[in-house]
Amino acid sequence: MSLHAVILAGGAGERFWPASRARRPKPFLRVVGGRTLLDATCLRARKVAGEARVWVVCGREHAQAIRRATGLPASRVLVEPTRRNTAAAVAFAALRISRVDPDAVLVVLPADHHIPDTAAFARDVRRAATAARQADVLVTLGVHPTRPDSGYGYIDVGAAVGRAHPGVHRVRQFVEKPDRRVAERYLRSGRHLWNAGIFVFGARVILQEIGAHAPELAAALAPLGARARVSAAQLLRCYGRAPSVPIDVAVMEKSRRVWTLPVRWRWSDVGTWESLAGELGVGPGSSHLLAGDLVYDDGAGNLVWGRSGRPIALLGVSGLAVVDAGDALLVARLDRSHEVRAIVQALKAKGRLDVT
Amino acid sequence: MSLHAVILAGGAGERFWPASRARRPKPFLRVVGGRTLLDATCLRARKVAGEARVWVVCGREHAQAIRRATGLPASRVLVEPTRRNTAAAVAFAALRISRVDPDAVLVVLPADHHIPDTAAFARDVRRAATAARQADVLVTLGVHPTRPDSGYGYIDVGAAVGRAHPGVHRVRQFVEKPDRRVAERYLRSGRHLWNAGIFVFGARVILQEIGAHAPELAAALAPLGARARVSAAQLLRCYGRAPSVPIDVAVMEKSRRVWTLPVRWRWSDVGTWESLAGELGVGPGSSHLLAGDLVYDDGAGNLVWGRSGRPIALLGVSGLAVVDAGDALLVARLDRSHEVRAIVQALKAKGRLDVT
Repeated sequence: MSLHAVILAGGAGERFWPASRARRPKPFLRVVGGRTLLDATCLRARKVAGEARVWVVCGREHAQAIRRATGLPASRVLVEPTRRNTAAAVAFAALRISRVDPDAVLVVLPADHHIPDTAAFARDVRRAATAARQADVLVTLGVHPTRPDSGYGYIDVGAAVGRAHPGVHRVRQFVEKPDRRVAERYLRSGRHLWNAGIFVFGARVILQEIGAHAPELAAALAPLGARARVSAAQLLRCYGRAPSVPIDVAVMEKSRRVWTLPVRWRWSDVGTWESLAGELGVGPGSSHLLAGDLVYDDGAGNLVWGRSGRPIALLGVSGLAVVDAGDALLVARLDRSHEVRAIVQALKAKGRLDVT
Repeated sequence: MSLHAVILAGGAGERFWPASRARRPKPFLRVVGGRTLLDATCLRARKVAGEARVWVVCGREHAQAIRRATGLPASRVLVEPTRRNTAAAVAFAALRISRVDPDAVLVVLPADHHIPDTAAFARDVRRAATAARQADVLVTLGVHPTRPDSGYGYIDVGAAVGRAHPGVHRVRQFVEKPDRRVAERYLRSGRHLWNAGIFVFGARVILQEIGAHAPELAAALAPLGARARVSAAQLLRCYGRAPSVPIDVAVMEKSRRVWTLPVRWRWSDVGTWESLAGELGVGPGSSHLLAGDLVYDDGAGNLVWGRSGRPIALLGVSGLAVVDAGDALLVARLDRSHEVRAIVQALKAKGRLDVT
């Protein structure tokens, strides 16, 4: 078995406005440990799959930047001509990788998550890969929830699959983002895990399941697996017919061959300035300077992103995200930062594409 | 009698950082009605003194900008070689103006105050000028306090001077900035007025009083009145010997020839971002955009100063001053904005003269 890592880098970059933009989405943000989320994801991918079996799926507008940032050869940067959500991205990768390695097992990794413990991550991915290969199943990693978050999908965990795969469980069902009250119940139940969007499966198995549960998508993209090279015209034709749907909805929630591996390491999808602040330890006692030149801050609990050489002074404020991106400025209460998208929408509605 | 207006434009520009700077102090800020405070002061000065009798006293670093902004001839822009506080500025102006108009009556106006009602202002200045000329006294305009402000000096008002000058009173004493409790008592007393730093007196009278109460200053600057032209070297020599003291302390608090004219119009020295916000009607229900491009503000009570073309978005915040000066950024609670000076001091201590 060879394990290939497929990094999905198709994000829109709205939630970290104005630091992130359509052209510079979240994976390119240098947010934790001075490294971009994409760099950190690549490191994890190399750790589990080895240098030669790391792939990225991305849109045309980011392909060049991703090749430059990752150092990957063009053959392993799969460029989608239009955005068609994650099911198409996974199918595209599975088809291309199958051509060079018919027995490939894939680990699918979103490009913009934060997982501090790379070693623990790699260990669990390998366990999941063994189960996926031996049992021909789709394995999703499930993260133990630490708070009643209503922004995530949950996995309702079933019985253990047995001695052959210790720790691996069946999935009773996937649950879409619950309301707060239900999320609190899930947290107490001990039976519900966050669906982190990290999947492990054989390329052949996921293609079978896509064929079974998303036949339109399978039919649209099938030609991409037929030849050693794919022309831009063919790619565009295939994608033009492909439905846009998440892999969770298209396959994971429907397939009867889904298992889950509960994991114990810390994970964040770094969804908002607030969750990033949480990862960085911003709290009542301390602010955090992500970038730039904070010359004065008599408050605490602020997350600051500035531009080098342009000093920022904060007086009497706390619990804020202050983001000076050079051509745009955000001052937001951290606990309202899930609404940042509304700002981007408002700017787009005003035709301000220069700053979105 | 000819009334001359003397605009004092010697401010340091720290309290409106980062919009104001050492090189671009408060009078140059475009803050109310799209006009700079200096422009508005010039309009008032022209209204009371006429185009040909408006003078400015300023430092070397601002002379060129002031000539350009006011359109005044160089002969009426009196440039101080070093900063020596207001007593020296007033003496310098009185000496120079006396040479061209020995019977001149001066109205001294700080360059950075806000007085919306120019007509009422002009009427009261003329009344004060009549009293000053007829009785050879120093008249200070006293503003009825509207709040217990502990940031101003107060005038303890005495008896009316009599029928010849209706509304004009003697001054019992000047009181330096009181504490909050005392300021509250003053507000209730009805007998205490804010010392607005607007003075009316004959040039000859103020020079006599400076001679009597600040003889060192009088001696140092006397040569400036002796000749039609003053060389730069002589000016520097005179200023080098002049003590640095406010006209209030040097003369007004000591002279027995001080009267006051209580006035009823609205006045602000626009001392902080908070007081400016007050002038602009910023409150729980509304924010105010002074400059720039506020693309999103779901809060209220914010005062925003930005740069054109650089959008600012505020999310969930209120009661803030958000000041993006291009090369520096301030985010401050308005009710803490009297502490902005501490930021400038901290920057100076760090050697960051580029942004102070």
